[in-house]
Amino acid sequence: MTTATSPTINSERLLRRIDALAEIGSTGDGGSCRLALTDADRVGRDLVVSWMRELNLEVSIDAIGNVIGTWNVGSGAPVMTGSHIDTVRTGGRYDGNYGVLAGLEAIETCMENGITPSRPLSAAFFTNEEGARFAPDMLGSLVYVGGMPLEVALDVQSIDGKRLGDELTQIGYSGATPCPGATPHAFVELHIEQGPVLEAEGFVFGAVTGVQGISWQELTITGQSNHAGTTPMHLRRDPAFVAAMMTVYLREIAERFGGDQVCTVGKIDLHPNLVNVIPARATITLDVRNTDENTLRDAENLIDTFCFQIEQDEGVSIAKRTLARFEPVIFDDRVVDLIERKCAEVDGRVRRMPSGAGHDAQMFARVCPTAMIFVPSVEGISHNPREHTDPQHLIDGANVLLRVMLDLAETEF
Amino acid sequence: MTTATSPTINSERLLRRIDALAEIGSTGDGGSCRLALTDADRVGRDLVVSWMRELNLEVSIDAIGNVIGTWNVGSGAPVMTGSHIDTVRTGGRYDGNYGVLAGLEAIETCMENGITPSRPLSAAFFTNEEGARFAPDMLGSLVYVGGMPLEVALDVQSIDGKRLGDELTQIGYSGATPCPGATPHAFVELHIEQGPVLEAEGFVFGAVTGVQGISWQELTITGQSNHAGTTPMHLRRDPAFVAAMMTVYLREIAERFGGDQVCTVGKIDLHPNLVNVIPARATITLDVRNTDENTLRDAENLIDTFCFQIEQDEGVSIAKRTLARFEPVIFDDRVVDLIERKCAEVDGRVRRMPSGAGHDAQMFARVCPTAMIFVPSVEGISHNPREHTDPQHLIDGANVLLRVMLDLAETEF
Repeated sequence: MTTATSPTINSERLLRRIDALAEIGSTGDGGSCRLALTDADRVGRDLVVSWMRELNLEVSIDAIGNVIGTWNVGSGAPVMTGSHIDTVRTGGRYDGNYGVLAGLEAIETCMENGITPSRPLSAAFFTNEEGARFAPDMLGSLVYVGGMPLEVALDVQSIDGKRLGDELTQIGYSGATPCPGATPHAFVELHIEQGPVLEAEGFVFGAVTGVQGISWQELTITGQSNHAGTTPMHLRRDPAFVAAMMTVYLREIAERFGGDQVCTVGKIDLHPNLVNVIPARATITLDVRNTDENTLRDAENLIDTFCFQIEQDEGVSIAKRTLARFEPVIFDDRVVDLIERKCAEVDGRVRRMPSGAGHDAQMFARVCPTAMIFVPSVEGISHNPREHTDPQHLIDGANVLLRVMLDLAETEF
Repeated sequence: MTTATSPTINSERLLRRIDALAEIGSTGDGGSCRLALTDADRVGRDLVVSWMRELNLEVSIDAIGNVIGTWNVGSGAPVMTGSHIDTVRTGGRYDGNYGVLAGLEAIETCMENGITPSRPLSAAFFTNEEGARFAPDMLGSLVYVGGMPLEVALDVQSIDGKRLGDELTQIGYSGATPCPGATPHAFVELHIEQGPVLEAEGFVFGAVTGVQGISWQELTITGQSNHAGTTPMHLRRDPAFVAAMMTVYLREIAERFGGDQVCTVGKIDLHPNLVNVIPARATITLDVRNTDENTLRDAENLIDTFCFQIEQDEGVSIAKRTLARFEPVIFDDRVVDLIERKCAEVDGRVRRMPSGAGHDAQMFARVCPTAMIFVPSVEGISHNPREHTDPQHLIDGANVLLRVMLDLAETEF
């Protein structure tokens, strides 16, 4: 590597690009809605690809719609950074977008400063990270590393009843590059924390040691629809009541296990969903996460037992479907150590921590040395238009990413 | 009154009309969907009006869309029967429709048998009895008896965001007859029980003594939307959890009170309703019914207290809106006695009972002597395509209705 002095990114340009991308699918209240493979997602993709092309990056689009911009300098496998630009329905401006645009910014900074790393540098965005429209989440990076066959992924149905492959073609992002993709030399992802820990404890950076395991299940509870006024309580088979019992029980599990255990019911659909009709059916989702695989399995077993018991007690039947299941991920200690050192060069307030959310980086941890950098989220708010990170923290994080990528390009594992 | 012999209705014609009406908005599984003031409702109305006109009844359509077919014989205020032909989304074939068509059948039977009662006979159907599209339920009969100003009713918004008055005009049933309407001499409604009691206890008829009081409330629970993976349990303000707690608590109230007390959560809407997002907001409906007004108030007070407590405990805010509130109704003892006697003439297996569901008759109880006749519902199933009543019970019920109407026409109160 040839480097004049310690480079720093162009803050104004980074923040301007974040603002420009947030305008696409803007919800008018500071947030963005670019559900995966919708028209809004397409427009966002087009904008980021246009920036990649302005930098003369080699742009590869693969068969699941992942987009990788590579600066072909040096030799060997690239150091890759990447994240996503799809959002949840009530998404913020930084989740995913920040990491992708900071990656571009890191590459552009090297170019402008005459820095020539020994390996290519890539900045990527991966399809359907959020899982808000297609399950599972992190689907693009999962397919990239060979964790799901391409054909299976293309046949996934969206919540609005569309086939993923059709939607991908529809927006023009069914690319020619085959999946699984080429293995990078190393992978690093920069992301907002999306949780309250860094801010609450006064840190500026998180050197992320791994990702909580995730269990997503969908329960379809079938009972007996009937008149709300004339059906005595003891004759009811009420799926709404069972859905409520399950929601309350999930909280009990979280309280019993403590520590990193989190449990969420984010989605409930009753049918027919009318004030004076005992529903025929309730569909709910369970989101259960822990850093320890055995504890995660314990939680799943408790849920199974509870389902069996409440089927007997309430005369309903419960069908269970796994929407996503990821074991906890442990990142590469060498990369975590490197991140911790590079953070300290910028600001000493860095702590090692696990990630509570899933990220594309966890897929790359299967195939190459990988870790992540976190910057604080104000009040821990994310998946919300009020998602915010102090601009100085955004700038500091991008500078750490730049340093980490340059160091990784010179490191042999 | 001049009557040759004890008349009986034309069973085949009654059942055929029930089948013909059920075809409109057929859900293909034995049920019908004719939500109030939709196109399907219009087609159903047109069919029943065509039958009224075939009988040369005087058809009056009032400003809230209630339709009354009157056979103008004798003198004075008419004996009126009536019910509704709108349905819930997953409606059965008999709920409401049966009473309307049995009323027509009773009038036609009199005509065919040369029976001339001393007063006019009317058969009516009332707008939006179900409340499945517009709240409150029984809106048409409520406006008829002066319980709600016409202008207020016309401004009611549907669950799909439409104004009632506009939808009424759209389907061509904004009529010229003013509201409130003329007071009948007496009112009697024939209806399926929609509950399991008659069948379970081996009765053929219910002589209905009154209607349970109904309290419908909508709770909008506002918390803090956030990422399901990164937000520790103790920092959550989760409206879905609060909605579940309320649903479980309603069951507790029903169990504590026992007797006729029923409580139902039939509708839950989360926003944004995604697997990995703690919702920002949950909207749920509470349907609480009791035959005793004081007990109903006790239940409402317990709900208020619970809301206040859980707002503190969970850091949410709860906005409450009353969708409907009806005190328990007591029917006219003289009419109930008459019904009991006329039932016994057809089949001795009759019992006095309250109604668990709301009915248009309860509105008429405010202005004239009123009661109802029930026939059994198989397995108590209603608001469901599987709603069923034995055809012989349908025929028997219509014969009782005919006898009761003829007797009421000769009775001075």
